[in-house]
Order: sequence, then structure tokens, then C-alpha cells
Amino acid sequence: MQGRFTVLAVDHESQARLGILHTAHGDVETPVFMPVGTQGTVKAIAPDRLREIGVQIFLCNAYHLHLRPGEDLVREAGGLHRFISWDRALLTDSGGFQVFSLTDLVRVDDEGVTFRSHLDGSLHRLTPQEAVRIQTALGADVIMILDQCVGFPASSYEERVATERTLRWARCAREAFQSEEQMLFGIVQGGTSRELREWSAQETVRIGFDGYAIGGLSVGEPKPLMYEMIECVEPFLPVEKPRYLMGVGNPVSIVEGVWRGVDMFDCVLPTRNARNACLFTSWGKMNIDRLEFARDFGPVDPDCGCYLCRNFSRAYLRHLFKAGEILAAELATIHNLYFMVKLMKSIRHALRGGYFREFREEFLSRYSENF
Amino acid sequence: MQGRFTVLAVDHESQARLGILHTAHGDVETPVFMPVGTQGTVKAIAPDRLREIGVQIFLCNAYHLHLRPGEDLVREAGGLHRFISWDRALLTDSGGFQVFSLTDLVRVDDEGVTFRSHLDGSLHRLTPQEAVRIQTALGADVIMILDQCVGFPASSYEERVATERTLRWARCAREAFQSEEQMLFGIVQGGTSRELREWSAQETVRIGFDGYAIGGLSVGEPKPLMYEMIECVEPFLPVEKPRYLMGVGNPVSIVEGVWRGVDMFDCVLPTRNARNACLFTSWGKMNIDRLEFARDFGPVDPDCGCYLCRNFSRAYLRHLFKAGEILAAELATIHNLYFMVKLMKSIRHALRGGYFREFREEFLSRYSENF
Repeated sequence: MQGRFTVLAVDHESQARLGILHTAHGDVETPVFMPVGTQGTVKAIAPDRLREIGVQIFLCNAYHLHLRPGEDLVREAGGLHRFISWDRALLTDSGGFQVFSLTDLVRVDDEGVTFRSHLDGSLHRLTPQEAVRIQTALGADVIMILDQCVGFPASSYEERVATERTLRWARCAREAFQSEEQMLFGIVQGGTSRELREWSAQETVRIGFDGYAIGGLSVGEPKPLMYEMIECVEPFLPVEKPRYLMGVGNPVSIVEGVWRGVDMFDCVLPTRNARNACLFTSWGKMNIDRLEFARDFGPVDPDCGCYLCRNFSRAYLRHLFKAGEILAAELATIHNLYFMVKLMKSIRHALRGGYFREFREEFLSRYSENF
Repeated sequence: MQGRFTVLAVDHESQARLGILHTAHGDVETPVFMPVGTQGTVKAIAPDRLREIGVQIFLCNAYHLHLRPGEDLVREAGGLHRFISWDRALLTDSGGFQVFSLTDLVRVDDEGVTFRSHLDGSLHRLTPQEAVRIQTALGADVIMILDQCVGFPASSYEERVATERTLRWARCAREAFQSEEQMLFGIVQGGTSRELREWSAQETVRIGFDGYAIGGLSVGEPKPLMYEMIECVEPFLPVEKPRYLMGVGNPVSIVEGVWRGVDMFDCVLPTRNARNACLFTSWGKMNIDRLEFARDFGPVDPDCGCYLCRNFSRAYLRHLFKAGEILAAELATIHNLYFMVKLMKSIRHALRGGYFREFREEFLSRYSENF
């Protein structure tokens, strides 16, 4: 478990860090954004394109893969990497977030969660041990403990119960975890309470994990509150371990997260936006299906070097969306993921060069986020 | 108009020919299968993949592009090739088939067709001259005259009226056509009547076109009847011009069409089948969503060298279809088009080597078609 994360540089003006996550499927340069491949594929893009774009790691949802096709089938196929034809790093979440957000939840108790599948209504039980077992069978490089998420707003009682339960489950997961090849990350909860967040961080670190996620954020709370929660947790996280802000993927929040010491991010936003005709550009988002682009024969972003921007016009992409063509989703996904990879490269470059404060200021003044 | 098609070899045992169609966007080796890119994209596949697979030409529907985004926009974009980012050959159909099959047809008269758009119900008029104008503006390398298609079965009266009208329209189209860069193909009609087919062929050739299509087949008639119609038309088509059997795309019919002297084919079948989980293999079709493939970790076709078969298993592709992932459509489309390109390459190889009869026999005994 030692030596699986290397901090190459720490910013002299912020908590930002440049690092490398060493996995069984190659090194991942951090800060990194991880696209989401819910059912064993990042939606609307093939793995060779992901590789070409420069994606180093993506995330699959253990909840979805457990229900279909099932972790036994994946293991029989030779593990998740071979099954989906991806030889770089993978992370699976525990399934907890989906159980709380997608299913007819039947019961949460101190030992686990009982829920009905969103696919066929069948009854399932997920415990911290079972979450580790499922993810061990799937074989991703980084796996997550089962946690209990509360929404926003939540009562302080709910927040406390979920935080305590997550800690209890963290201990169970830690004990159940035996894989040599994989890393297990703990998850800090605590809702929007500074006190709970600090306590959760301290206790999670005391249990000891290969990395630490900050969960339960980006669930509807104001951005400043999210940043405050990261700031109050950060001092309690060990410098030598990676930190992962779950569910955050808009460009501004990523830059702000890196500023506050976060190394890893994931979100469906870039890929979901793409399928909804919303494209990231160097000056902010762009809804390509608007009438103003009907006869706009320039590229989506003249500063972008992706397959879309090198070969196709705004007018053509708009036409594809209007015509309901699958290629629209693919091209927009390629573009948005290329944008994210390039953003993270720029961040790492700035950290390496010691000018991350200037980068952040310039980025925030240029990029208008109206999400 | 001379020298746009070269016959390299004629089979000594059949009417089959090996040739090259010389277009403003490169040479196309014949016999060739043309995938269909209705709205300016072959569904579920990007043009760089088409190129990689070896597709030399595909077809776009003038009807669809006329209604959306409109030929004026396409011309403003620099023409169809530039608009859709495809620098190899393109063919557009006249829109006639779609007008007769997709729209609320208002009226057919000797001068053209009045119909309501399938998109918004708006009233449109298509004449032979207008079909040439639209396709000239779009800028495909091969364009087609407006023809009147009858279904199967049709009365002999209907067949005769449509054949006469198509000839009338063919003369109008020929007169209206002035493009230097493009080729104009006539279309032989005549339903299932040998007499009408022969007459239509003779008269169409008398008008004189860069190539001759056989239309109004593959509309529900028995296969032997389709082959009979090709056979009775073939002797009247000039050897030095390309022949195009419209709407035919299943592998057996292609081999049989080539045997009877056809050089070009198009059909939505390989791409539509792909999106419906039906894959072509060297022994016939395969419905990959069947339960028997759930734990089948071998490739779809061990003899296939496509991106799908080199990287993914039957079990994974089935999972993608079951999960409703877009990647399923893309991978299956790549595979089916690769299959078609390889089939046409094998046919050309056999013609070059002088063993097409043996190839045909071997193919028909091996390939079971249950379409």
C-alpha cells in the first residue's frame, strides 16, 4: 500500500499538488478528471478514442455492473479491463450513490442497504463487505468503500447519522479488503457541517486508506459552501495520499478544487452535456443546437485540436443534433472529453511551472460558467 | 462524360465485371457496395472510421438533405463533401424513392410530384429538373434522375404508367443536367414485366447517361424474380457504363447481382441490421442479443479483422445492446460495414484472378441467409 501515490510538487500559493497515482494498469498523472463509464463504457465513445484523446482513467458504476451483467460474468471474462477492452486505469464506485439516488430504497440499517433494482424491481442487499467483494471481482484499480450520502439540504440529525454510519461501514470495508492489486479509498462525509466533516476526515484517516474521497458534495449546495467543506477537510488529509472530490466535473469547480488540494475528480457532466448539445469551449459553454449556428461554418472552438474541431463545422454538428443522428453525440463527447483532458494538462503544466495562481485567475476571468 | 468508367476485366463464365469508376473525388473500385448516409452521415459511425474500414463511396438522400438542412446551406458550406467531412466519392439519390415511400403523397403528374414533408407536413414540389438542381447544389459525384417507383405487387397498368413517366422524366433530367464535375445516372424501371424492363432499358440508354441504375427492385418481390429482371435488362446496357442495382445490400443478392453484371449496390441493411443487433459473419447472420452469447467471450467472427472483433467479445457486445449503450450501435456498424467492404474486396479479387464462379459457389454454400 506504500508508494502508490507520488507527490511531485506542491504549489507555493495554494494547496494544489502535482502527482502520480501508480496503478496496476499504468501511472495516472494528477490532478486528473475521470470520465464516467456507468455500464462499462463511457457513453457514445469507443475506448480507442478515449485513449487517443489522452484519457488515463475512467470510472465504472459497481451498482450497474452488479445488476447487469453481474460481477461473476465480468470476472469470468478476465476482469473489467479485458471485458471492456481498456488497458489503462479504472476506478469503480461502491454503488452506494446509485442505491440512494436511483432505486426504491427499502431500508438502510447499520449493516447495509436493502433496495429494489431500478431494472426489474428485484430485491437486493448491499453491505460494506459486499461492496468490496463486488468491486474486487470486477477488478478496477481503485475501489471505493460503501458510504451513505445525504442530499442537500439535510437535517443535522440526518447528516450525523449518515456520517457515523459511513465510518462504521468504512471499518467493515477496510477489514474485508484483501486485494493486492487494487487500492481502497475511504470517503469523508459530513454534509455541510464543518464539525462533522472534520471529524469524518480524522476518523477515516485513522482507519487508513490508499486514498481519500470527499463525498456528499455537488448535490445541490451552493458552490461557496462546497469549497468551504473542501477547505475544512483538507488539513486532516495526509499529504502523501491522493484526494478525490466525487461528482465534480464542471471546469470552474475543478480549478477551484485543485486550488484547495484535490487530485482526482469525476462527473457525468462533460459526457451528459455533450449528448444534450452543450459543448465546452475555452470561453465557456455553448449550446450548439441554437439557430444562430445554423450557417456558422467555423469550428466549435478554433483553439481546440479535437477530431470534431479539426474536421467539422458548427453548422454540421447542429444539423446532426437536429436530425437526431448518433454521430452528434459521439462528436460532442469527443470534444468535451478532449476539453477536459486539455484542461487538466494545462493545470498540471501550471503546477509544474509554478504559475498555478496566474493560471487560475486567467481561467476564471476567461471562462464563463452558466450551468 | 467519356472515360469515367473503366472495365478492367469481364468474367469468362458470367456477366460479372471488374472496373473502376473515376470520380472527381477519387477512383472507386467496382463491384462496390455503398453504405447509406441518409442525412449526411452513415448512421452510428464517424467518417474517419469509414475511411479506415475502406469505404470508397457512400450515398446520401437528396430528399432528406433538401428538407434539412437544405441544399443552399450545404452549398454555402462548400458542398456536401466539405460539409460532412468526406473527401472520397459520394452519390445522392434523387429523392424520388423517399417521396413515394415516406411522405403524404399529394399528387403525381407527368411533370413531377407534390408531397408533404414527413418532418413538418409542409407542401413541396419535386420535378425532374428540380431533382437535378438540388443534387447539383449538393455536389455529390454521382447524381440520379427522378424516377417513379411502384411497389410489389403492382398492376401492369401502374407499372406501365410509372415506366413511361420515368422515361419522360429521364429526358427532362438529361436536358437540365449541366454539371461538369458530376455524373448523371438514368434509372431503368418496369416493375416485374420483362417487356417493360427491356423497353425501359433501351429507351433510357437511347437518352444516354453516365451510368444506368436498375430501380424498383428489392421492394418485396421474390429473389428469383429480381434476378430475372436483372438478367433481362443486362443485355441492353452498354458494357462501357457502370450499372447500379438500387436498394440491394444483402450479401447473397450482391454476389448474385455481380454474377449478372451489376457494378454498384446500396442498401441500409448492413447499418440498420447493426443497430438491431444483427451481425454479418462469414457463415451468415447472428443475433448477438440472444441469451446464448451472454457468456461467450470469443469474438463475433474469429475470421474478421475489424475493430470490434479484434478487441471485444460477443458477451460484451451483447451487454452493450442489453444496456442500451450507443457504443453497441457503433461497434456493430463498424463490423457490418467491414464485412461488406471485405466481401466486395473478395469478389474483386476473384474477378481479377478469374475464379469468380468458384468463389460464388463456395460463398453460397457457406453463407446461410435467413433474412
